[in-house]
Amino acid sequence: MDRIINIGIIGFGVVGSHTALALHRKRKIFSSYNGVEFRIKKICEINWDTQREWMPPKNLRTEDYREIVNDPDIHIVVELIGKFQPAYNIIRESLKNGKAVVTANKFLLSRKLLELITLANENKTYLGFEASVAGAIPIIKGLKESFSANRITSIIGILNGTTNFILSSMTAKKQDFKDALLIAQKLGYAESDPSLDISGRDSAQKLAIISTYAFHCSISDEDFLIEGIDKVGSDDIEFASELGYKIKLLAIAKRLNDSVSLRVHPALIPQGHMLADVEDVYNAVYLQGDLFGESLLYGEGAGGKAASSAVLADIIEIGKKISSEAHFSEKFTIEPRIAVQPVDRIETKYYLRFTALDRPGVLAKIAEVLGRNKISIASVIQKGQNPECAVPIVMLTHRATEKNVKNAIKQIDRLSCIKKQTQILRVEE
Amino acid sequence: MDRIINIGIIGFGVVGSHTALALHRKRKIFSSYNGVEFRIKKICEINWDTQREWMPPKNLRTEDYREIVNDPDIHIVVELIGKFQPAYNIIRESLKNGKAVVTANKFLLSRKLLELITLANENKTYLGFEASVAGAIPIIKGLKESFSANRITSIIGILNGTTNFILSSMTAKKQDFKDALLIAQKLGYAESDPSLDISGRDSAQKLAIISTYAFHCSISDEDFLIEGIDKVGSDDIEFASELGYKIKLLAIAKRLNDSVSLRVHPALIPQGHMLADVEDVYNAVYLQGDLFGESLLYGEGAGGKAASSAVLADIIEIGKKISSEAHFSEKFTIEPRIAVQPVDRIETKYYLRFTALDRPGVLAKIAEVLGRNKISIASVIQKGQNPECAVPIVMLTHRATEKNVKNAIKQIDRLSCIKKQTQILRVEE
Repeated sequence: MDRIINIGIIGFGVVGSHTALALHRKRKIFSSYNGVEFRIKKICEINWDTQREWMPPKNLRTEDYREIVNDPDIHIVVELIGKFQPAYNIIRESLKNGKAVVTANKFLLSRKLLELITLANENKTYLGFEASVAGAIPIIKGLKESFSANRITSIIGILNGTTNFILSSMTAKKQDFKDALLIAQKLGYAESDPSLDISGRDSAQKLAIISTYAFHCSISDEDFLIEGIDKVGSDDIEFASELGYKIKLLAIAKRLNDSVSLRVHPALIPQGHMLADVEDVYNAVYLQGDLFGESLLYGEGAGGKAASSAVLADIIEIGKKISSEAHFSEKFTIEPRIAVQPVDRIETKYYLRFTALDRPGVLAKIAEVLGRNKISIASVIQKGQNPECAVPIVMLTHRATEKNVKNAIKQIDRLSCIKKQTQILRVEE
Repeated sequence: MDRIINIGIIGFGVVGSHTALALHRKRKIFSSYNGVEFRIKKICEINWDTQREWMPPKNLRTEDYREIVNDPDIHIVVELIGKFQPAYNIIRESLKNGKAVVTANKFLLSRKLLELITLANENKTYLGFEASVAGAIPIIKGLKESFSANRITSIIGILNGTTNFILSSMTAKKQDFKDALLIAQKLGYAESDPSLDISGRDSAQKLAIISTYAFHCSISDEDFLIEGIDKVGSDDIEFASELGYKIKLLAIAKRLNDSVSLRVHPALIPQGHMLADVEDVYNAVYLQGDLFGESLLYGEGAGGKAASSAVLADIIEIGKKISSEAHFSEKFTIEPRIAVQPVDRIETKYYLRFTALDRPGVLAKIAEVLGRNKISIASVIQKGQNPECAVPIVMLTHRATEKNVKNAIKQIDRLSCIKKQTQILRVEE
């Protein structure tokens, strides 16, 4: 045995308890494989009443995180309480005390990643955060190490299991959004307040973290276009299917000449694309780079076990680094030139669903406004004929800018033949 | 700049020249991102006549690998000549001289991986070999690091681009094997002597390497059941499709109670499985583990650029380790208990295609022999009726052992109503 690594875990919830359980059950195999013995020194939790598969003995328990953050014997602090405070203080204090930190805190890292990496480097220690994005999928390590020689040109992720489950249910079972959400809540895939997931903000936080690594620039999720899935109707899913597409909540980051385009929104994606086959609570990240071409990493994006797989990978790797007694700087260079593209300048294909009176000349009027705004039509579906009431007209456009599309739709929605606000979705190919 | 890392490249073929080109073009960005400057000190090639996108200046060229292996200034030797000798000597001598080695040599590693890792450790240096399996797909790093806390239970890989291209063409274009092979050769996806790929041996070498890491046991590709794709007929592909399957050349490793099942063969895989959508020259590895559940890593498995992405990732990571002046032992524990399951005891579902006379009672005779050998039938397709000549009868079985299936088919093929050797394929679900 080369060395004992003492671990303090803060947060004994779903991820924390699975991490502790695996450390407890697998300690012999971990030390035999890695030449390092991992010991849980203390676990902090404010509510010890919830029964977990494995409950630590009393002497390992505390309700005060300072007992971990200030314990000179603890090498690695595992922060699994989430949200901003006190997690931010815990991580900063731990790093300042020379401890390594492993965290799954996507919200905090989407705002403070660079500051915390710098703090880790200054204190010659490490920050591990593989579990903060897409559970067990090794996307952070992929960008930091496996694809490090590449210029990453594009990332398209399905980074939120809850919304992917809802969209999958809506597609497979022809449910509407509300029913699918209720089922997701019943199955424990959606929280009672699901707004963080549904709104796309959870995906945006994760995209901010991976974009920072992919593009070597400081990105906050506050810079994004973010749209949620609550706007997607079951009719949109059916029209998309008829046109050869599925609708997914995509987190998109693309490198442009002098900026990056960053956005989270529901989008149509061709049925043949690997991402279209990612169903239920699974996550996936599709990447393009100048050397590797294209790649997809797919796996379980949520759940205690899958997240603990990523937390433990960080613990083991950092433990080995600590036991080697050298320090590896996670040198991280920021490219000052890269800016986030303004929303107006987004250029993509669009799916437009108009609700219009079924009268002669309506299509011509819509097409005229689109043409005036430099938007050309790729295909049209007009379903049902009923001169009495409004019917849907669905169009796919060729590439157009967000600004022109928004302008055109504003004008079209003022036409007397248009009976409801036009649905706008983007198409990703 | 913390440190200069000198690199010697041996082999200036497709992968070597792309690696050198990227090191040359990207040297500024590599040093800015990693705090280490990577310099090509020498490139060895016995034939400098082939023109590549970038040709090194004369002073960097040599035809004698000893100039690299014995150069005290060179930190990393990149071996990209393949095959057994002189690659084996080059790697051993380099490691003994304290140099790190990065290699893509799957053949050599499928036989000598443990010996070379041990030699690297003894000499406090590193062996990088991500590029040896599945090109740019980070499967080695996945098993060594990202999934290191898991007990890996199953690996199913599409590890050979050539055979996947041929099977994809046969499926999409209803070509027979010979035509698809000719097209693959014309497009440069298959070599003029394609036997290493077609026979499954290339996939077996790669599976041996990843299995060693997945199961912590010493595995040589000589232990495997290996069958090639030349036995797959276009009619098999059609029948499989009718039954809801695609045929892929799969490299399979499964953990059993006290052994691992290792095999490479064409297999039916359900059309809904992620691996069924891996087409053309792409590779993918589908994994199962006790914590992460299931995962798929997908990408370009061949080609100079994709392989150079993996070679460069190893170079960059090892360069950073060298510049830190500590040594990380790649401690690797072998589990002595694990053995390779004998072929006879393989248990799976089977696809059987009989060529039998179209007479009453034939099906009963076949079913009787199968029943006697404890094989139960899941479904049957009998196509075409022609009492004059033989017609195909296709069966899917429930789980059965290889021994029982082989015995049954031996008996069935002796029946007078059977006109051709029965086709046996395995089904993976």
